[in-house]
Amino acid sequence: MTGLEYLRALAAGDAAGAPIAELMGIEAIEAEEGRIVFAGVPGPQHYNPIGTVHGGFAATLLDSALGCAVHTTLPAGVGYTSLELKVNFTRPITTETGRVLCEGKVVHRGSRVATAEARLTAEQTGKLLAHGTTTCLIIPLNGAAA
Amino acid sequence: MTGLEYLRALAAGDAAGAPIAELMGIEAIEAEEGRIVFAGVPGPQHYNPIGTVHGGFAATLLDSALGCAVHTTLPAGVGYTSLELKVNFTRPITTETGRVLCEGKVVHRGSRVATAEARLTAEQTGKLLAHGTTTCLIIPLNGAAA
Amino acid sequence: MTGLEYLRALAAGDAAGAPIAELMGIEAIEAEEGRIVFAGVPGPQHYNPIGTVHGGFAATLLDSALGCAVHTTLPAGVGYTSLELKVNFTRPITTETGRVLCEGKVVHRGSRVATAEARLTAEQTGKLLAHGTTTCLIIPLNGAAA
Amino acid sequence: MTGLEYLRALAAGDAAGAPIAELMGIEAIEAEEGRIVFAGVPGPQHYNPIGTVHGGFAATLLDSALGCAVHTTLPAGVGYTSLELKVNFTRPITTETGRVLCEGKVVHRGSRVATAEARLTAEQTGKLLAHGTTTCLIIPLNGAAA
Repeated sequence: MTGLEYLRALAAGDAAGAPIAELMGIEAIEAEEGRIVFAGVPGPQHYNPIGTVHGGFAATLLDSALGCAVHTTLPAGVGYTSLELKVNFTRPITTETGRVLCEGKVVHRGSRVATAEARLTAEQTGKLLAHGTTTCLIIPLNGAAA
Repeated sequence: MTGLEYLRALAAGDAAGAPIAELMGIEAIEAEEGRIVFAGVPGPQHYNPIGTVHGGFAATLLDSALGCAVHTTLPAGVGYTSLELKVNFTRPITTETGRVLCEGKVVHRGSRVATAEARLTAEQTGKLLAHGTTTCLIIPLNGAAA
Repeated sequence: MTGLEYLRALAAGDAAGAPIAELMGIEAIEAEEGRIVFAGVPGPQHYNPIGTVHGGFAATLLDSALGCAVHTTLPAGVGYTSLELKVNFTRPITTETGRVLCEGKVVHRGSRVATAEARLTAEQTGKLLAHGTTTCLIIPLNGAAA
Repeated sequence: MTGLEYLRALAAGDAAGAPIAELMGIEAIEAEEGRIVFAGVPGPQHYNPIGTVHGGFAATLLDSALGCAVHTTLPAGVGYTSLELKVNFTRPITTETGRVLCEGKVVHRGSRVATAEARLTAEQTGKLLAHGTTTCLIIPLNGAAA
């Protein structure tokens, strides 16, 4: 399966989600070449001690959307690993925020390295909650060409 | 309570942990002025679909250690918010890794802005799994001086 | 003058450029609310010891475009400072690259903090050479409202 | 020559510096395995329009120290490229600051990827002016092993 085939199956509910996605209450809902959307509902279980949703919730959504956006561009037999993640937190997230959407898009796709950007918004208001970027290393497995 | 008093109570188990900490299985275990250590045990519930622990686990630990390191420097009545988080993933984390430690330290403490750095290591081997930095905005509440 | 008035004058050649812009051979060429474009021609004076243009050239262009994009949104009497800069280098720059364009755009404009993103491309080919983001602190001067 | 042999020669003045180093007025002054120090004197030519030294000066010093720290660990025949650069600006730099020192250190050295961190301080006061990190890709040339 290519990356896109796998992620389309995931978004359609035809492939098993990741354990972390179940733990954090997030899921892929759309996938196309170079672009993916994750969604999640922030709840009381995501709170930090200072009265808002912990940055780890946004970071997990962004990391998922960024890595999977890169994954949509990979042929069968080619893997990737995220080298780094950069997140900007622009508005607090609370249980009042409602469902959030995280759209990831590939910015650069080289043969060895890819970069992507993502934005996390509140579905109801469209307000930007966080945004981020990643750098991924592309790893041919068993001699496949990236 | 000052930030340090609160975080010492948290590390001693005398203050309630954050819901996200319980969800992710992480906890503060040491706190002093400008420095904090979190710990956690990566498990199957933290996995991504590509066979290792999801980057969100390391990002959550790093974000906690970075923000709380800054928090240890704040007097009573002064809050903070994390503006951004930068993570480097240096080694894969698996259930074989065992308990991980995340030490956060303040790098710069200004009157309005603070920065911190953190390292996530495997307790058994000392190997570096990830590292990161943050920028926090310091927010005097109700007229307190930062 | 508002930030936009100043940056339009700069792009029109009606305000003195910064000394660093002259040193590095870069200049603002377009400015509107929330967006600015810088241009520059990479030359032999920008080279590093490993045979390509040094990352500092792209970083200087990106930092200029990112900060000035935020500046276009500021009323008279309000300043800003860049807290952090993140750069991804996606393709090598050489003297063969020809003139490069760096477009900066505001992503988030809050009352105390703003973020922006920028892309550096080769004018001839449109190829992406680098991209980046910034976080800026907005600083009311002398009691002005941001 | 290994990376360390080259950078020791550079720091000793026995190898030609990079054109960008001459342009920006910076130079390597110490090099050992995994660590390097650059120095520079901020002058009026480095100013931005808002009355302080432009962020590009710090970014160029940090990018140099970060990349060269990684370079000190490379055997002959192995190159590297900087994938990304993250800078925090913690204090303004002016012509009053005097000479600045930028120490870069390797944080992680894998076979394909390395990370480094650097701090830029004022020589006279020791105050921290900026700090940063990088991610570098290690590139064996002509079949050498990294």
